Amino acid sequence: MEKAGILRPPDDEIRAAARTLLAGARFGALAVLLQAPTRPFVTRIAVLAPPGGAPIALVSGLSRHTGALAKNPACSLMVGEPGPKGDPLAHPRLSLECRAEFIRRDSPEFPALRGFWLEQVPKARLYADFADFSFVRFRVTAGFLNGGFGLASALSPADLGIEPDAAPA
Amino acid sequence: MEKAGILRPPDDEIRAAARTLLAGARFGALAVLLQAPTRPFVTRIAVLAPPGGAPIALVSGLSRHTGALAKNPACSLMVGEPGPKGDPLAHPRLSLECRAEFIRRDSPEFPALRGFWLEQVPKARLYADFADFSFVRFRVTAGFLNGGFGLASALSPADLGIEPDAAPA
Repeated sequence: MEKAGILRPPDDEIRAAARTLLAGARFGALAVLLQAPTRPFVTRIAVLAPPGGAPIALVSGLSRHTGALAKNPACSLMVGEPGPKGDPLAHPRLSLECRAEFIRRDSPEFPALRGFWLEQVPKARLYADFADFSFVRFRVTAGFLNGGFGLASALSPADLGIEPDAAPA
Repeated sequence: MEKAGILRPPDDEIRAAARTLLAGARFGALAVLLQAPTRPFVTRIAVLAPPGGAPIALVSGLSRHTGALAKNPACSLMVGEPGPKGDPLAHPRLSLECRAEFIRRDSPEFPALRGFWLEQVPKARLYADFADFSFVRFRVTAGFLNGGFGLASALSPADLGIEPDAAPA
């Protein structure tokens, strides 16, 4: 269970906790929309957040979540994984509301993202250049930090130190 | 990244792997639908699967996901958490498509679920009897096992050893 309660307004401590979770993320839970009927679907993906930037992922066009994002960019990403000890629900996590933006192989941005990703995930060299792979940038519209029992806070992209989504929500 | 590929038809090995993930789950990633616009939202919850039964969670009516589920029962639950070592994306996980069914305090089922939950999560005694808490049963309509790189399989509730959702998808 997640203890619900009064949301605490973001302060420097909360902002720092959320930014630490984002910067330290190596994987996360991605929720996308499936259709007919409209319903959520959650999977695990590798994800990295460049300093000051929105989180990105290297995705295969063959995977179910990629197909869903291509049809509807609305998605949600949770980062902050419990360690092996203690109560997993006491471990802080950050849920983001996002819009997925594809950065395909022919985009001028692609090489820089590829370089950043391969530096962090060297074994991605095995597949990063396959034709069906592209990057997705998760443009963040809102954040929600659950810092463990009794602490929750709604955060803006600015609170997270990243640029907001320019598109209408 | 999640390696996409040909889905392997469920066999006994795959069914056993999926059932082990479900039976061993203590927490998971829950995706629900938020509205206006319709979009997914993913959070972490404590979850337990009684033997042969659909997974359940003890939820507070004050939490965001509970409010979302009360408005729209379509949800998705992922279980199977990576250990502290190795490639997290190589760790198996099970994504479920579900419909949330509330079991409120006045339901005849409530006492048995409460007993099961408190046996597994003794410290839930601190809040299980608060008026705003209820159980949610996640009626499973479909399962998707990602067994790590190169292995994926679509599973039915029967493959998971649990009763299917009786409601139309």
